[in-house]
Amino acid sequence: MSFDRLIEGIIRTQNPTVVGLDPKLEYIPEEIRRESFAACGENLQGAGAAIFAFNRGLIDALCDIVPAVKPQCAYYEMYGWPGMKALHDTIEYAQRKGMFVITDGKRGDIGTTMEAYAKAYLGKTQVQGNTFIPFGGDALTVNAYLGSDGIQPLLPWCESEDKGIFVLVKTSNRSSGELQNLNVNGGDTVYFTVAQHCETWGASTVGKYGYSGVGAVVGATYPEQLRELRQDLPTTFFLVPGYGAQGGGPQDVEAAFDSRGLGAVINSSRGILCAWQQKGCAGSEYTVAAREAAIDMRDAIVGRIGKIG
Amino acid sequence: MSFDRLIEGIIRTQNPTVVGLDPKLEYIPEEIRRESFAACGENLQGAGAAIFAFNRGLIDALCDIVPAVKPQCAYYEMYGWPGMKALHDTIEYAQRKGMFVITDGKRGDIGTTMEAYAKAYLGKTQVQGNTFIPFGGDALTVNAYLGSDGIQPLLPWCESEDKGIFVLVKTSNRSSGELQNLNVNGGDTVYFTVAQHCETWGASTVGKYGYSGVGAVVGATYPEQLRELRQDLPTTFFLVPGYGAQGGGPQDVEAAFDSRGLGAVINSSRGILCAWQQKGCAGSEYTVAAREAAIDMRDAIVGRIGKIG
Repeated sequence: MSFDRLIEGIIRTQNPTVVGLDPKLEYIPEEIRRESFAACGENLQGAGAAIFAFNRGLIDALCDIVPAVKPQCAYYEMYGWPGMKALHDTIEYAQRKGMFVITDGKRGDIGTTMEAYAKAYLGKTQVQGNTFIPFGGDALTVNAYLGSDGIQPLLPWCESEDKGIFVLVKTSNRSSGELQNLNVNGGDTVYFTVAQHCETWGASTVGKYGYSGVGAVVGATYPEQLRELRQDLPTTFFLVPGYGAQGGGPQDVEAAFDSRGLGAVINSSRGILCAWQQKGCAGSEYTVAAREAAIDMRDAIVGRIGKIG
Repeated sequence: MSFDRLIEGIIRTQNPTVVGLDPKLEYIPEEIRRESFAACGENLQGAGAAIFAFNRGLIDALCDIVPAVKPQCAYYEMYGWPGMKALHDTIEYAQRKGMFVITDGKRGDIGTTMEAYAKAYLGKTQVQGNTFIPFGGDALTVNAYLGSDGIQPLLPWCESEDKGIFVLVKTSNRSSGELQNLNVNGGDTVYFTVAQHCETWGASTVGKYGYSGVGAVVGATYPEQLRELRQDLPTTFFLVPGYGAQGGGPQDVEAAFDSRGLGAVINSSRGILCAWQQKGCAGSEYTVAAREAAIDMRDAIVGRIGKIG
């Protein structure tokens, strides 16, 4: 239950960051693509193989210094079922290397449908009495627009299977305020209403570090809201996107952490995946460049928050 | 652009309904399961094969009298990548049989990520200059909690590729009001605010029947809101879940239609898929039972709204 496993990974590595695995084909070095297409064909299977090979290299290069990865489902779904196979293989490999996997699917539905998503991304599926792990993963991002009916089916998995969810609260994009910042009944915003629900939904799963298994997504691009929410949500762990390419910096995310340096994990995707292109390295150097970029990000954030735990 | 193709299917069949393909293994007759497991193994591949075989039978039995199907992604994702292959195969088969396919994924993300979902579920993916269709589908259900940034990337596909989206507005579940019914700034509800956005987002894709390619999901379980929204959203086509098993009846959905009997498509899933079990038929009769149930549903609704178009 709770995010204790993630938090222990953060303390062990002294690194409160997560690498977003959003692997577009154009981020993948030519050598890897060529090999994968030669083996599987210039098709969706070849694309899936290239994505998995790319991710495997990144995971190998990062697993001792970064506690978690966050594959973004959309970039796998766009390659059809072979892309989804690459998602499965990536999750399995990252977990085998000791990383905590946050599957970023922003799923949201109700009742038995949400139970099906829970099985897909946090649990297991039975077929004729045999048990299979559809995608695995340790946590899932979810959308609460449908209300508690969409969240309740996930809570048993958080409680009994040591899994977590991150509910979209205040997202990092420019237009997030259109709906999320509207003032409702008593004067609170929509996002704050959802945030308060997170505290309630998570109440029965608070772990030994004081955080529950129901986290919140709060963007680095809104540092004031991040500060306000950190103060008002004592048991809700934050997943913070929007660092780097989207504009958030170390000074923006500082307020996401509590006095122990806990309470949040900061995501960077392109800043790590595309480091080799941004630095003008050869494709063969993509893992070295990613590791350097991950260390730079870690040091910039830890320079602000100090020793963790 | 717009929902003209769906509307033409509705007029041709004189049937404003869509069959939800939410194929749990326990809905599938023993004979189909046995054959699929014998061919593929008692595993996720076998489950995927059984699901596709079940769906194919339903599509064959329904394609001349029902204009559309709505596969619910979660029930495919829970069987991992073989489940996603069954989703692909189901969509392809239904389209080949002339049906309009609404993929019910309730996806919602931003920018390039939402573009990836658009490619996955409404469009095409390029691999080394070759074009592939990841999942196909004619329309996708989407969640607008992230604001316009999550919807804009889909609109080019609605405009140029003759696709559509259905935005979650007022969902059919019990707790939908927790967030959706909150009163915001000027006194409107959250769901009405999203509904008004639908009219704006769809403005450039209004087709020959007066409806745009940006539809709204409005539950049959809230007939008053359905009536209010029909009046206030003249160019927004409705996808209406919650009929049958969830409690909505023909009298509840009548208000979803305009005076021509257009403006909405009503979904039933279990009422059709499980008709053979509900009626105590043999498994070999599941397509016959589904067809009868689909005809009953059509007649009950058309009995209220009269000739369509």
